[in-house]
Amino acid sequence: MHDEPTLATILAMNRILESTVVIVGVGLMGGSLGLALKARGLARRVVGVGRDAARLEAARSAGVIDEGVTDLAAAAREADLVVCCTPVDRIAADVQVVLTHGRPRLLVTDAGSTKRTICQSVPSGALPGGEFIGSHPLAGSHKQGFESADANLFQDRVCILTPLENATASQVERLERFWAAVGMRTLRMTPEAHDRGLARTSHLPHVAACAVANTLPAELAELTATGFRDTTRIAAGDVNLWAAILLANGPEVVAAIAELEECLARYRQAIQEESRESLKMLLQQAKTTRESLG
Amino acid sequence: MHDEPTLATILAMNRILESTVVIVGVGLMGGSLGLALKARGLARRVVGVGRDAARLEAARSAGVIDEGVTDLAAAAREADLVVCCTPVDRIAADVQVVLTHGRPRLLVTDAGSTKRTICQSVPSGALPGGEFIGSHPLAGSHKQGFESADANLFQDRVCILTPLENATASQVERLERFWAAVGMRTLRMTPEAHDRGLARTSHLPHVAACAVANTLPAELAELTATGFRDTTRIAAGDVNLWAAILLANGPEVVAAIAELEECLARYRQAIQEESRESLKMLLQQAKTTRESLG
Repeated sequence: MHDEPTLATILAMNRILESTVVIVGVGLMGGSLGLALKARGLARRVVGVGRDAARLEAARSAGVIDEGVTDLAAAAREADLVVCCTPVDRIAADVQVVLTHGRPRLLVTDAGSTKRTICQSVPSGALPGGEFIGSHPLAGSHKQGFESADANLFQDRVCILTPLENATASQVERLERFWAAVGMRTLRMTPEAHDRGLARTSHLPHVAACAVANTLPAELAELTATGFRDTTRIAAGDVNLWAAILLANGPEVVAAIAELEECLARYRQAIQEESRESLKMLLQQAKTTRESLG
Repeated sequence: MHDEPTLATILAMNRILESTVVIVGVGLMGGSLGLALKARGLARRVVGVGRDAARLEAARSAGVIDEGVTDLAAAAREADLVVCCTPVDRIAADVQVVLTHGRPRLLVTDAGSTKRTICQSVPSGALPGGEFIGSHPLAGSHKQGFESADANLFQDRVCILTPLENATASQVERLERFWAAVGMRTLRMTPEAHDRGLARTSHLPHVAACAVANTLPAELAELTATGFRDTTRIAAGDVNLWAAILLANGPEVVAAIAELEECLARYRQAIQEESRESLKMLLQQAKTTRESLG
């Protein structure tokens, strides 16, 4: 009867969503999630899991988590929802540990930049120890560590969910509510479609930014201006994280790089042949695409 | 005796440098120069030259110039210093007109992103109508038009001067004082060294940003995040300006693009061969380079 949300709905939307949320890996992403959950009162308790007790204590002191533990299995036993914010080459192993020690209604997700290899490695559907559904919040920074965490990192960004066919519908919806509650717009895709898309929108730009930086002779640094700096900004990202991402999405990234090389060859040819019209067509298409993103 | 500047020196440093400065092309660059000169009281009169009288009047109303005229020859006759802020493929012709109508001590420069073709086209050394010395202030924006002009655009940026061997020393120094007065650090290079350097620090990043934008399928726009947006930001630049720049520096840009293609092929190969160590070496070198720029 009504399109407007009722007061009860509004109140319900603002209620505590999960009792104990466990964040595995309290870096920039995990730390920002902790801050967002605490700032919005979305969890009764936010537990951070890491390998370094001193770092966890520092994160707790900074108000990023309520509690820090180094024992993932123990944390899993008490969890209602677990978010693995570890590097992509560690997520599947962490999820396995969590699913071995979790409770039946436990919901496990991740924040990894690739989805196919992770979703293939983890048993899908409801299990005795819970259920894993992949997530990729499209938010981040070239900065590292919980010290750079930001409670608003997720605001108005997109989160991609990659449930497999046998995922439990109510758990998928629960995960959507979770990411929506920290400010995100959610989309559902297959892990394969996700990896194909992100190869173009995230992994290729990273490689391109790095390759431009690689070609700069040191003595020319003083001739760089804002154009060079913007174009290469993400090249400052973490080397291990990015090596893992590029390798986990290898075939799609290789295809995207090959496509970029072909496009660069078209620019090179247009300039070599002094074909102003071909060059302007390429530049105009790029300008139109870029401007469409706002 | 003293390292500290005296009061007289300080006053002298802040004096009016030029009586009538003529800015040819009142867009983002020319408009920002007008604002900077007026804000710092560096010229008695700032005259803007353009083809569209209504646009010039709008620039005058906005306080970017003191006066707008469409007759370049007439403006040249009254000028002490002329800065051609027109597109690189028009600068040489504009400078020729100015040198035909100028006075003996007239100093003519430009703000073009390439220098070799311009400096080759213009007679060098002192002439009856003045003298041309090339400049390239490394400041700019993907925005266009005097409406986006910024009096601080030049602050703390580098300006490259490309005097030929027979340039008059006092005129080169005068030009250095001019750019320093709007906040820039000046460097002297040959036009060839400038073009070789800028191919790597400016023209290649532009092509790379455009090529990454070119490879984005329209349906993936919603999967882009800050990484894609930063890396491709400069692809929104003016198509005609950039086509002219890339063609004016053709051989150097072609060599730089080929080098980028080779570097991309190294990334592609490392990923294809799952060679984590090779990939990490490339990523680490890029990160180190990028971080060295601050």
